[in-house]
Amino acid sequence: MAGTDTTQSIVYRPSPAIILCEPQLGENIGTAARAMANFGLWDLRLVNPRDGWPNERAVAAASRADHVLDKVRVFATTEEAVADLSLVFATTARRRDMQKEVVGPEEGARRIISHIGAGAGAGLLFGRERWGLYNEEVALSDAIVTLPVEPAFASLNIAQAVLILAYEWRRQSDLGEALPFGDGRAEAAPKSELMGLFEHLEGVLDQTGFFTTPDKRPSMVNNLRTALTRGSFSSQEIRTLRGVISSIDRRHERPNPNRQKPES
Amino acid sequence: MAGTDTTQSIVYRPSPAIILCEPQLGENIGTAARAMANFGLWDLRLVNPRDGWPNERAVAAASRADHVLDKVRVFATTEEAVADLSLVFATTARRRDMQKEVVGPEEGARRIISHIGAGAGAGLLFGRERWGLYNEEVALSDAIVTLPVEPAFASLNIAQAVLILAYEWRRQSDLGEALPFGDGRAEAAPKSELMGLFEHLEGVLDQTGFFTTPDKRPSMVNNLRTALTRGSFSSQEIRTLRGVISSIDRRHERPNPNRQKPES
Repeated sequence: MAGTDTTQSIVYRPSPAIILCEPQLGENIGTAARAMANFGLWDLRLVNPRDGWPNERAVAAASRADHVLDKVRVFATTEEAVADLSLVFATTARRRDMQKEVVGPEEGARRIISHIGAGAGAGLLFGRERWGLYNEEVALSDAIVTLPVEPAFASLNIAQAVLILAYEWRRQSDLGEALPFGDGRAEAAPKSELMGLFEHLEGVLDQTGFFTTPDKRPSMVNNLRTALTRGSFSSQEIRTLRGVISSIDRRHERPNPNRQKPES
Repeated sequence: MAGTDTTQSIVYRPSPAIILCEPQLGENIGTAARAMANFGLWDLRLVNPRDGWPNERAVAAASRADHVLDKVRVFATTEEAVADLSLVFATTARRRDMQKEVVGPEEGARRIISHIGAGAGAGLLFGRERWGLYNEEVALSDAIVTLPVEPAFASLNIAQAVLILAYEWRRQSDLGEALPFGDGRAEAAPKSELMGLFEHLEGVLDQTGFFTTPDKRPSMVNNLRTALTRGSFSSQEIRTLRGVISSIDRRHERPNPNRQKPES
């Protein structure tokens, strides 16, 4: 979905940190950064990335989410990466044999929003491509966040898991209803203009004999008006439709070039 | 997020069709199929895919979402791909100069769910990697769905756009609250056991002189009990904590190997 508005500048709002634990592939770091940028996150932290940092493949995969990559911080351990946070969720699709609360993305985002709203720091832990998070990392989290996936196909790519949680955060924030553009629809015309259309059309149809019998006319008119009301036409559209009616109605008044002259 | 439960079998529920218009890269078809599978969608339709069908790169990128790829249907035109549907949304991140309603993913998913609930067919159109959807394709849709993205970074990969809409569909469906696993938390112990812990601890602290002055004791006790109540400990955890207290309390009763013998 192309459509970035280059006239807009990036806004760095208070938002949750995304912590990738020992990511193996630069591509995943880049696509995670892009997913964050799509929904306004920017605090990306890497714990001991396998291929070091900076990483060219991450840059290539980030589709110009450079403002996120430029702010990346690298840590030696997960403990250091979350040291400044007071609310940490571990994202995992695997049940852990642990006395740890499990919540869905809606509840997780709700808690993060109120926590950050109170001026505190919150973050989300994401595990390794192969093995996910270690139990030690889940243990130092306040709760587990997992997604309402299809149990028979529960495996998400890291960037996709980041995307869903970034989306939930934004959806529930005051930006959730703020779409990048609205519809350019003109407002519906006043009913008087709609009545003008109806009477114009029905007058023509009276002449063409559309209404088979007088007793059927009222119900047929109601059905027509019901159908034509549904479109909530603008004044311009009503003018156009009346032009269409007139054009068809006048057809017989004009000589039809395709019609054969009658034999004389 | 690894965690697919291989004991579960795929369920094909009535769900929206995902229509990719002239996708250029097989990878994107595969990752879109995977995103669909994560949230239980399965009806994938391709309009004139650039590299034909089947596509090995799609299979490689789908991470075993074979049940979706096996059902793929290919159409020559978008009109044919939506012919059996009575509700079609065009996904786009670009404003169109068109009198077309624009809704967000929540409203879009809400309409799709009620439409499908009424037994009718619904689908979502996704555009080309480079140019998105043509205006002709947007025109034949009932409305535009766009995401509440960061305006300054609005470009989503096709699979990511599919993922968000598949997630919204599932989130609002009766499966939205169904997480693949719950927490294994034992229930909180009865208050009598918690009182036993409090009295045990406070009794020890009375002996150690923790409560500096008698008049401070009640408030200090309340603060301690407040902190220890918050964890809603299980019976097992309370037994463990009482063991901890006893162990510390008894330390002086045992000879301390590190302590020097007093000079005699």
